[in-house]
Amino acid sequence: MVADQGSDDAGSAVAPTLRSETSRLFSFSDGVFAIIITLLVLDLQPPEVPRGELLHALVERWPVYLAYVTSYLFVAVSWLNHRSAFHRVGSSGKGLQWWNLSVLFSTALVPFATSVVSSSVQQGDRADERAAVALYGLVGVLLTASWLGLYHHLARHPDLLNAAVPRGFFPAERTRAVVGILGYALAALVGFLASPPIALVIFLLLPIFYALTSSGLYELRRLRRAHG
Amino acid sequence: MVADQGSDDAGSAVAPTLRSETSRLFSFSDGVFAIIITLLVLDLQPPEVPRGELLHALVERWPVYLAYVTSYLFVAVSWLNHRSAFHRVGSSGKGLQWWNLSVLFSTALVPFATSVVSSSVQQGDRADERAAVALYGLVGVLLTASWLGLYHHLARHPDLLNAAVPRGFFPAERTRAVVGILGYALAALVGFLASPPIALVIFLLLPIFYALTSSGLYELRRLRRAHG
Amino acid sequence: MVADQGSDDAGSAVAPTLRSETSRLFSFSDGVFAIIITLLVLDLQPPEVPRGELLHALVERWPVYLAYVTSYLFVAVSWLNHRSAFHRVGSSGKGLQWWNLSVLFSTALVPFATSVVSSSVQQGDRADERAAVALYGLVGVLLTASWLGLYHHLARHPDLLNAAVPRGFFPAERTRAVVGILGYALAALVGFLASPPIALVIFLLLPIFYALTSSGLYELRRLRRAHG
Amino acid sequence: MVADQGSDDAGSAVAPTLRSETSRLFSFSDGVFAIIITLLVLDLQPPEVPRGELLHALVERWPVYLAYVTSYLFVAVSWLNHRSAFHRVGSSGKGLQWWNLSVLFSTALVPFATSVVSSSVQQGDRADERAAVALYGLVGVLLTASWLGLYHHLARHPDLLNAAVPRGFFPAERTRAVVGILGYALAALVGFLASPPIALVIFLLLPIFYALTSSGLYELRRLRRAHG
Repeated sequence: MVADQGSDDAGSAVAPTLRSETSRLFSFSDGVFAIIITLLVLDLQPPEVPRGELLHALVERWPVYLAYVTSYLFVAVSWLNHRSAFHRVGSSGKGLQWWNLSVLFSTALVPFATSVVSSSVQQGDRADERAAVALYGLVGVLLTASWLGLYHHLARHPDLLNAAVPRGFFPAERTRAVVGILGYALAALVGFLASPPIALVIFLLLPIFYALTSSGLYELRRLRRAHG
Repeated sequence: MVADQGSDDAGSAVAPTLRSETSRLFSFSDGVFAIIITLLVLDLQPPEVPRGELLHALVERWPVYLAYVTSYLFVAVSWLNHRSAFHRVGSSGKGLQWWNLSVLFSTALVPFATSVVSSSVQQGDRADERAAVALYGLVGVLLTASWLGLYHHLARHPDLLNAAVPRGFFPAERTRAVVGILGYALAALVGFLASPPIALVIFLLLPIFYALTSSGLYELRRLRRAHG
Repeated sequence: MVADQGSDDAGSAVAPTLRSETSRLFSFSDGVFAIIITLLVLDLQPPEVPRGELLHALVERWPVYLAYVTSYLFVAVSWLNHRSAFHRVGSSGKGLQWWNLSVLFSTALVPFATSVVSSSVQQGDRADERAAVALYGLVGVLLTASWLGLYHHLARHPDLLNAAVPRGFFPAERTRAVVGILGYALAALVGFLASPPIALVIFLLLPIFYALTSSGLYELRRLRRAHG
Repeated sequence: MVADQGSDDAGSAVAPTLRSETSRLFSFSDGVFAIIITLLVLDLQPPEVPRGELLHALVERWPVYLAYVTSYLFVAVSWLNHRSAFHRVGSSGKGLQWWNLSVLFSTALVPFATSVVSSSVQQGDRADERAAVALYGLVGVLLTASWLGLYHHLARHPDLLNAAVPRGFFPAERTRAVVGILGYALAALVGFLASPPIALVIFLLLPIFYALTSSGLYELRRLRRAHG
């Protein structure tokens, strides 16, 4: 309800410091990403076991380490995407601020969802694992839907972009977000109704897709055309 | 007792780096806001339940999620307000530093108050809920009173502002802060003496008011005059 | 053993980006201060009490709130001191980096010492309170001794300072640090051997002294001469 | 699989803001380092002991304090190394981004490994201590191997460096990383098979080696030649 005004409130009155205002969006977002990616490590705690059992307990915890790696990759790729998108943004506005806050909001849910998955693998039964992967998938849908909103906002407000950014860039990025929405929704469904391990494989594949396409689909197509 | 000196101690002797000094106020404040908004997520933990109960436990926790959303919105709006106010500030001083530290101090109490409210809803009785919403309301009063102090300081020290900022801007902002003080005080009273749910509704409405007016009352009035 | 080389290793080879190197010292330090000041709030947790006891439990916890306020003030003043000192620094070097890391190291101990004091007040006996205030005093000594090292390093390496900084500034700052070392040592002794409450009063007074003198003793003397 | 493309995706299209893109790598990394170094202090908690036992419990915890100091030194030296390396970097790229994310990933494991070691010293038997030092050594190998990857990437992509950086700088840095890999691997083996205390001594010595050589082996050799 407060989005979509396009150019920033203060843009007219206080033009000379406009750039410094974009820089605060960066420093706040970088701070949030840095905290989220580091909070993940709080799930790694010394196991509380009887004397002499430490080695065994550390080895047995491999699903926790795998969950840590997957989520680290997920948040790292989100940050790279953020950097890549905002690299092309010249000025912000209320709408963009709120879409950015939505992305940060849903990214902040990743450590929680990770923690639920790794505790269900360790202590839960099959029904718990189904609930946990469904939750993780839902958080993935929320996150990629926020990205879709952000990309769509930038596709519709080219005035916010740097002059050198080609018009087709952000419209093409929407496709990347839609792939994620469908992928996480599929994984949540498959995991909840059929097989949690298949969901976990999809959860690991999606960040790899985002890592491989983090230059943007538009740039990738341009490069393919240029080389072929 | 250390406030209100107006211009900064170092202003005279080390003028060339004055801007970098304002930038540290930004980076410190952005860091604090980023941490506070991310700490909220620490209240979301995997529920410790018997095997097979995870889905039920996750669904039953909806008040915790609602509290998370409300407080995220509250802190996000505080950050937008902060950005919008300091966007208009050209140089700082001891007084402004301490008012800023007061705002950060009271914002840092939001996750604590949120946590008390959501645990009272889950585990407490009616009396506990009354105490919890009263605490949340008090933190809200403290926070909006800090904003009042900050706006009042900037209204009285126009020398700290960017040249392009109209004189009426910060005097008008004081009204927004007073609305919050009265609103949170009312919610605390109503919640403590009569109905906690009514207080929760007010707690959700106030950040929306701040989001809608985050351009500043002065700008909104100017726009209304320009369009009518 | 790695300190006191004066100018930075990379100074000769990569001069053009020297300023950006100082800016990373700022952003890292601002990050650490922001985290420390926000970690303090983690000591504020919803009390785990039987139903209907929340209000009583919240009120009874006043020493925890007082400890929070005192330590927030302590860390806030440290940050203001840091800003005020490094505002006058033009380039860094290994020695300055390590003194800065010492200041951050000892500042990071403040939340721990605060937590020990507030838990001893709530759950301990007189002997525990004595141990706790002695620990807090020791952390205070460590912190002010780090500041002494930093000020002494800057007093001996005027080549690191901005051109406009008067020669007498950092030599005079050493006095402020020595006041802190003596004050915290005295408080630790008095608290451990005689009266913990007297120690707590000194702990509250010392940050106020630093707040009042945060422009630097040199500037204060200059102002007094100028006005009288 | 996404590394080694050399220059950044966005480099061609959005050249004017290239510097700001490097600055986000700095602010994100500084944020992560600041959080990691401050998370270490969360291991310091008020001991939960019967009334009157606080002083004794605080003194008995010296291995926790030693672990805190060792790991603070370790992370501080990592940050100094990071600053020193990226000080020489003029532009980034996907490969460099991922190597940087690997360094941050393995640095984030240090608080976990520290925590395991200090809890094994306090509560475990000899077998637990062996497992704990082996884990700490493995994390050390992972961290220094990430540094080797980063140094190797910069040695092979001189186009990413500032013009003034001598060609031999990063090839020589690889030697420093290899010393760490061998040192931590040796410590893990000796600690696991023979004597945990010897491993702890090596763990303390390696950060000191990195602190003493943080100007880079190339610079140290150059200085030695210049002076002899």
